[in-house]
Amino acid sequence: MIVETLAVGTELLLGQIANTNAKDIAIRLAESGFTHINQAVVGDNADRMGAAIRLAVSRADALIITGGIGPTADDITRSAVAGVAGVPLIYDETHEHVLRKRWNWMRPDKPFPESNLRQAYRPEESHVVVNAKGSAPGFRILIEGCWVFSLPGVPGEMLAMVDELVLPFLREQAGGGRAVVSRVLRSWGMSEAKVGEELQDLFDVGKNPTVAFLASSGEIKIRLTALADTQEEARALIAPVESEVRSRIGNVIFGADDDTIERVIRTELEKRGWMIGTAESATGGLVGRRLTSLPGASATFRGSIVAYASDLKLGILGVPPETIASHGVVSEETAEAMARGARSVLGVDVAVAVTGSAGPEPLEQPVGTMIVAVATPSVATVRTLHMPGDREQVRAHTATAALHLVRRAILES
Amino acid sequence: MIVETLAVGTELLLGQIANTNAKDIAIRLAESGFTHINQAVVGDNADRMGAAIRLAVSRADALIITGGIGPTADDITRSAVAGVAGVPLIYDETHEHVLRKRWNWMRPDKPFPESNLRQAYRPEESHVVVNAKGSAPGFRILIEGCWVFSLPGVPGEMLAMVDELVLPFLREQAGGGRAVVSRVLRSWGMSEAKVGEELQDLFDVGKNPTVAFLASSGEIKIRLTALADTQEEARALIAPVESEVRSRIGNVIFGADDDTIERVIRTELEKRGWMIGTAESATGGLVGRRLTSLPGASATFRGSIVAYASDLKLGILGVPPETIASHGVVSEETAEAMARGARSVLGVDVAVAVTGSAGPEPLEQPVGTMIVAVATPSVATVRTLHMPGDREQVRAHTATAALHLVRRAILES
Repeated sequence: MIVETLAVGTELLLGQIANTNAKDIAIRLAESGFTHINQAVVGDNADRMGAAIRLAVSRADALIITGGIGPTADDITRSAVAGVAGVPLIYDETHEHVLRKRWNWMRPDKPFPESNLRQAYRPEESHVVVNAKGSAPGFRILIEGCWVFSLPGVPGEMLAMVDELVLPFLREQAGGGRAVVSRVLRSWGMSEAKVGEELQDLFDVGKNPTVAFLASSGEIKIRLTALADTQEEARALIAPVESEVRSRIGNVIFGADDDTIERVIRTELEKRGWMIGTAESATGGLVGRRLTSLPGASATFRGSIVAYASDLKLGILGVPPETIASHGVVSEETAEAMARGARSVLGVDVAVAVTGSAGPEPLEQPVGTMIVAVATPSVATVRTLHMPGDREQVRAHTATAALHLVRRAILES
Repeated sequence: MIVETLAVGTELLLGQIANTNAKDIAIRLAESGFTHINQAVVGDNADRMGAAIRLAVSRADALIITGGIGPTADDITRSAVAGVAGVPLIYDETHEHVLRKRWNWMRPDKPFPESNLRQAYRPEESHVVVNAKGSAPGFRILIEGCWVFSLPGVPGEMLAMVDELVLPFLREQAGGGRAVVSRVLRSWGMSEAKVGEELQDLFDVGKNPTVAFLASSGEIKIRLTALADTQEEARALIAPVESEVRSRIGNVIFGADDDTIERVIRTELEKRGWMIGTAESATGGLVGRRLTSLPGASATFRGSIVAYASDLKLGILGVPPETIASHGVVSEETAEAMARGARSVLGVDVAVAVTGSAGPEPLEQPVGTMIVAVATPSVATVRTLHMPGDREQVRAHTATAALHLVRRAILES
């Protein structure tokens, strides 16, 4: 099934924001096995939006439009889609009721702005795609054999709708009305080639479930997709193959579906009643920033020491001066001492330390040499990594690697 | 002048990376006053690339293509452009020489891979756009009145070519062969409406230079664009208007053209021989990460303490227990004590501290209440901010605000 995406918004064309919606939808389309061949961005302009929709309808099986369905006059996606479909806009009184109820619940003290009622219009013959997290409802309509979805541009609202309504619908369409269920196993620490080798006999065409894999941001994702009469039957087909995959490469699988490494670490820490902290040099605080990206981070995260200057490694973290003198700042010995020091000074059960040479000028070691140490109540592990790319890539990939090494150290403790 | 962008790369359609090239080009087009009406992304597929190029050529004055000009078989932008132009590819022996020389200079120990010679082909009648930072040359060709540029996808190489070659060329085209010079003044801390009010009489249509402004990521940029016979004359037209703008709102202008706040802070610190550090709670290390994003950060940055847990604010940063007891963690008093503590424990001249309620659950104060304190050798300033948006937006905007408050505090010291 061929799927295109179209983002609507002048702010994208002015460069005020990057089109991360397209990236986030693209990941999901790839995970679901859909072919994604074109992405487009247009401003809040009826003619250009109409042209972009017509073009996509002419060559794709589905089009996902994000943005342009808010309550203001420049939100014109509804009428642009209706124009291409050749149908009028209809007023949905049920949705007017939903809008008023939602407003009264969220802002009982303020009068309902009548302009919000723009959101109660949608093209005739379209079906509502419910927005559980916001006021702008989406819709879907079939135009010349292409399913056109109109979703809000707000990432959190849009992605929830894609995950819960759009992809299941498209999978069902792709399966000829039968149930299509996908499960994604997420791995880190084994090369794409090695994963392919280990699972080779599972990739044969025509199997049910199919097994495919894709690499993104240092992770390898293994997708199992089953087709059956019901969701339950499809899931039952997936279960034994998932077991087989896990029996072969289970040591590198850290989660499934929307598990992120940050979430997995938090769960493992919570199970043990443990707290975590970081001691960072070359990553400048990035590992701590990722550990605090989830709401409620304070339940398992206490703090970070970013010791960029060497004497702070001695002073605050208590790295012995002779360690740095004999091994250097970018050394496994210093990284381990930083992790042990951070456990004590931050009062945490698990500490992760990063030192390294992020570039562009080398520091003691070649650029890209990054060292990660993890100390837990029972083990201390340390790994030297060689990261390709520029300064920002080296820092980002090292932070990802550090989080995965934290997970492993916790499991080994 | 209407400009479109087209990014080529299957990795974009798989969601492995976001299309930040489009964003970075879009900012520059907006700053130069060009109209940017469509962005597109296609995979490494000749037919779809050809269709996308034809479409852009039919409606734009210029098209900037990024990606697909490397040395491998799936790099097919050259032939796709030649196909649309209806011209053959020619082999450029001068460029073969450049490629071999560059290789021998960078990797004298390895033999030159003959496959690299793919990069010596370009469409007949095209002109080379020199890539000073990499091996893949770009080119430009006029197709049916539309200037088509083919540039590499590597951001650093591509943006240098856009800044130094593509935009000056397009400005000259737009000016009918006369020199067009733009200067962008960057401001922070005054609303868009207020900037507009202060500069209103300068915006009149038909003036030379023209004055325009645009908001992005919390900054307001004021663009002055002059048209003259020579670059020098154009610059001479801009100078008095820049002085006038600075005399009206100079207190909020922190830089010009490609000055970023990180760079400006580093320059101000270097002038004084000062070092900086951070003490962060709700931002989780983000301010430190931004201060270390520039190469050579260790010249002015010593470290950060991320004290997420309250007792670390007491322990490591030395915030007096009675301050937290009587005012709370999210208070101006605690922020100021964190900044003073960080100055001492990190051994820095300037410390910036952030505490706040980033959400989604409120912490003492409503979500979005963020407090920034800056301590220098002579002053301590503190500001309470009310940031809209979700957790990540609150954190990102607060980090930006904190950096601007650092700059002001340094200038006031």
